[in-house]
Amino acid sequence: MTVKPILLMLRTDSSGDIEVRAADPDAPQVSVLDFGVTRGDGVFESIGVVGGRPQALEPHLDRLAKSAAMLDLPEPPLDVWRSAVLQSIELAGPDAAGEELLVKLIYTRGIEGGDDTATGWVHLFSSGPYDHEREGGISVVTLDRGYRSDVATTSPWLLQGAKTLSYAVNKAALREAGRRGADDVIFISTDGIVLEGPNSTVIALIDGVYVTTPSSLGVLEGTTQAAFFADAEGRGAATEYRSITVDELRAASALWLASSGRQIAPVVTLDGVAVAQDPAFTSAAVGRLLAR
Amino acid sequence: MTVKPILLMLRTDSSGDIEVRAADPDAPQVSVLDFGVTRGDGVFESIGVVGGRPQALEPHLDRLAKSAAMLDLPEPPLDVWRSAVLQSIELAGPDAAGEELLVKLIYTRGIEGGDDTATGWVHLFSSGPYDHEREGGISVVTLDRGYRSDVATTSPWLLQGAKTLSYAVNKAALREAGRRGADDVIFISTDGIVLEGPNSTVIALIDGVYVTTPSSLGVLEGTTQAAFFADAEGRGAATEYRSITVDELRAASALWLASSGRQIAPVVTLDGVAVAQDPAFTSAAVGRLLAR
Repeated sequence: MTVKPILLMLRTDSSGDIEVRAADPDAPQVSVLDFGVTRGDGVFESIGVVGGRPQALEPHLDRLAKSAAMLDLPEPPLDVWRSAVLQSIELAGPDAAGEELLVKLIYTRGIEGGDDTATGWVHLFSSGPYDHEREGGISVVTLDRGYRSDVATTSPWLLQGAKTLSYAVNKAALREAGRRGADDVIFISTDGIVLEGPNSTVIALIDGVYVTTPSSLGVLEGTTQAAFFADAEGRGAATEYRSITVDELRAASALWLASSGRQIAPVVTLDGVAVAQDPAFTSAAVGRLLAR
Repeated sequence: MTVKPILLMLRTDSSGDIEVRAADPDAPQVSVLDFGVTRGDGVFESIGVVGGRPQALEPHLDRLAKSAAMLDLPEPPLDVWRSAVLQSIELAGPDAAGEELLVKLIYTRGIEGGDDTATGWVHLFSSGPYDHEREGGISVVTLDRGYRSDVATTSPWLLQGAKTLSYAVNKAALREAGRRGADDVIFISTDGIVLEGPNSTVIALIDGVYVTTPSSLGVLEGTTQAAFFADAEGRGAATEYRSITVDELRAASALWLASSGRQIAPVVTLDGVAVAQDPAFTSAAVGRLLAR
C-alpha cells in the first residue's frame, strides 16, 4: 500500500497572512519565474515520518530557518510550517501510520519581478524501502568538495552549511560515485578533512567513540545523526563533534551515513576497501531510530 | 513600450518527439517534482535580442549542449531549441525589433519518478534598460570562489564551467557585493587567479592587450566577450586568453564585465579603488555590440 502524495502550497496574501492550500502534486504549481527554478535560490528540508510521527520536527524547522537566514530569505513563520507538516500527515489518513514517508519542505525567494513574497510548499510522499541499504550497507567513495574546511568562516557567500536548492553538484557527485561502482559519497575538504555526504551526515566509530564533523566546518547539522548520538549517549557510549582526517576515516572501526529517509546505512566499502561491520548493532540502532 | 512576455514549453511526447507549445508565463507551469526546482538540477542560457535578432545564437546553443553534457543530461535537440528561440521572437511581434529583449532557455532533468524526459522552456521578455551600467559603469568587489583554478580538471563533479540552475552562491555573492556598497563581483580562485563574475565574463586591458580567463580554468565561455574580442581583432587590437592574477587585475588599464543583457559594463572601482575609464571607447564598443 502506498499513501497518496499530499501537497500543501503556502502562499502569502496581500495582507501578509499565509494561506495554506491543498493542491494537486501532479499538476504544475510553480512559475517559470520562480527563483527556486531559475536560480536554485531557496532552501529545503526532508523530514522522515514513521508511524505517523514526524521525526526531529523541531530540529528540521530550526535548520530551515537557519538556511533561510544564510540566504537572506524572509524569516519563515515556523508555526505555519509546523502546522502544514502536521496537516499533511493528517490528510494522508490512517494508512500513513503503516508506512515510512518523507515530508519535503521547500522555501524559495519567490517570483522574479513579483511582490517579494517567498514561495513555499510541503510535500508528503511514500519513501523507501530502505531495507537493502540499512541491512546490506552501502559502498562509498571519497570525493573532493573543492573547498577548504574553513570556508564557512572565511567566505559565507559560498553558503556552506545551508541546505539550498542548488544541489546540482551533490547530484553530480552521486553520478560520479555510480561511475566508480559505488552507491554514495563522502566529501573531503582540500585540506583533508571529512565533511559530509551529498544527502547525509558521516558517523565514524574511532577508538570506541562515535565521532562526526562539527557544523562549524560548513556541514549541515544532521538531525538523524543527532538522534543517533542521543541514543548512544543514553546507552552509555561516548560521542564527539570534532574534525576527522581522511586517514582517521580510513582507519575507523565502523562508518555510517545518517539521513532522514534511510536513518543510518552502514558503509561496507570505502574507496573499494572493506569496512568492518556489526550488523546486529546497526539493526538494533535502526530499530531504535525508527521507534523514536 | 514593453513587449509582452512569450513562453514556449518544450515537452517530449511518448514517441520521443518534442512538442513546442505556447503557454501563459504568469500561470504555474512547473511541477513541484521537477529536479530543476527541487535540486537546481538543470542548465540555462540567456540570449540577448536586439533589433529582433538573437545575438550569438549558435554559441549559446553550443554552450547549452556543453553544460547539459557536463550534467549527464540527455543531449538537447538544438534544432528544436533554435526554432523555439526564433519562434518566440516572431510571436513577440513587430514591437520586438524596437527593444532589447532576453530569451532564457531552461533545461532540467525533468520530473522525479517521471518518465526520464527532460523539461525545457524558452522564455522571452523585455530587458534593461542598461544605460546606467553601460555609461556610468559598475563598482565591483573581488570575492573568493573557494575553489582552486584547476578544479575543472581535477574534480569535474563540481561542475565548474557548466551554466547550471544551481546559482544560489552567485546570488549570495551579489548580495555580499551589495553589503559592501558595490554592484557586482569578480570571483577569485584560492590560488589568486581571476575567474569570472556571477553572471559575466571579465575583460581586462593589460599592456595594450584585451585579456580574459580561458574556459580551461572552469569559467564559462563568454559569448559577449567573444564578440568583443572578434570586434577588437577586426580593428587591429590584440586579444589573449590566459590566466590573470589578482595583481594584474588591480593594475589593468581598464576592466569590463561582459554579459548578454548589458553587453559590456566598464568597471569604475575595484574593491573601492578607481579604475581608469575611456567612455568614448566603451560607448562605441557597446554600439558595435548592439549592432552586430
